[in-house]
Amino acid sequence: MNKVITIGRQYGSGGREIGQKVAEYYGIPFYDNELITRAAKESGFAEENFAKAEDRATNSLLYSLAMGINVYGNQDFGFNGLSLDDRIFLAQSDVIRKVADEGPCVIVGRCADYVLKDNKNCIKIFIYADFDFRRERAINVEGIDENSVNAFIAKKDKTRANYYNYYADIKWGDYNNYDLCINSAFLGIDGTTKLIEEIINIKKK
Amino acid sequence: MNKVITIGRQYGSGGREIGQKVAEYYGIPFYDNELITRAAKESGFAEENFAKAEDRATNSLLYSLAMGINVYGNQDFGFNGLSLDDRIFLAQSDVIRKVADEGPCVIVGRCADYVLKDNKNCIKIFIYADFDFRRERAINVEGIDENSVNAFIAKKDKTRANYYNYYADIKWGDYNNYDLCINSAFLGIDGTTKLIEEIINIKKK
Repeated sequence: MNKVITIGRQYGSGGREIGQKVAEYYGIPFYDNELITRAAKESGFAEENFAKAEDRATNSLLYSLAMGINVYGNQDFGFNGLSLDDRIFLAQSDVIRKVADEGPCVIVGRCADYVLKDNKNCIKIFIYADFDFRRERAINVEGIDENSVNAFIAKKDKTRANYYNYYADIKWGDYNNYDLCINSAFLGIDGTTKLIEEIINIKKK
Repeated sequence: MNKVITIGRQYGSGGREIGQKVAEYYGIPFYDNELITRAAKESGFAEENFAKAEDRATNSLLYSLAMGINVYGNQDFGFNGLSLDDRIFLAQSDVIRKVADEGPCVIVGRCADYVLKDNKNCIKIFIYADFDFRRERAINVEGIDENSVNAFIAKKDKTRANYYNYYADIKWGDYNNYDLCINSAFLGIDGTTKLIEEIINIKKK
């Protein structure tokens, strides 16, 4: 298995757990939000390079940066225009491209499908689920209080959509961005994991 | 295999051909737009029964009718309010429910996923594809003229979306309506057919 698998997911769909299980099955690295963010911060790479980036935090600059177009070398560029969040996003994008170049892996979240959209070796999956399934997981797996869980899920959806729509400049969860969108409530966590393995089997042939 | 499989699809995605292949594989009946429409017209059932339906072609009446709630028996109801299209849709919905009750089958189009949304034995699939894939199929499989193919596809998309959104009262292609959404350009027609068979294998276990 030599593929990079990106997984976008609704909160409570089990997308992260499915990603972990797929990575375990193939014995390949697994990266989630936390790992990508930590790697971006630890690289030191970010601060040093983005210090040269210009004050023009437009969508097109973000796009250029995220896609790896090199604007760093130009000393005329300044740093002030990019927010800390933007700089973190760009550093994360670098980490995502780097780990994808290193070999097969599973990457969950952080607009990885968008960052790697021109990577032909990438399988882009979106995982969603029926609300009841998500609600039950939020309560029983994540420990969210039963009385506030509906509002909590709604807020999580909004945050993820906003993050994706801002940085990726396309709509979060739009099927056109993915090779496959799976309702995890249909096959369950293990069944969905198995289905992803079958996709890879079919793709290999 | 005892499932009813509904397939919604973008024009040019090969959804119809995939549905046919799945039906052949399992040796179960295949129904497309044409067959469903013919069955509805031939049943005679439509004219006779809808002649008693009331003049209130609201979404909620359509919903009630499509869901099979029996309002036919009431002689106070009149027929005039429903357009021919509406009546055909309702007769088609009856046919869809009838064939789904008869046993496993594949049904393509005609909002079958919506008509059968409360049928627990149903697997709901949406098939889409990259534009280039659809364009190539439109030209080479459907024989659409190369010069007008882009406009042709756009019009087909619009017609299907309008039809679905009008009768189903929910958004066509919204992943929440489906168990699985597959980009047929990713695995190809045969690969996507195989994937649907694998879904059924996993579901059986």
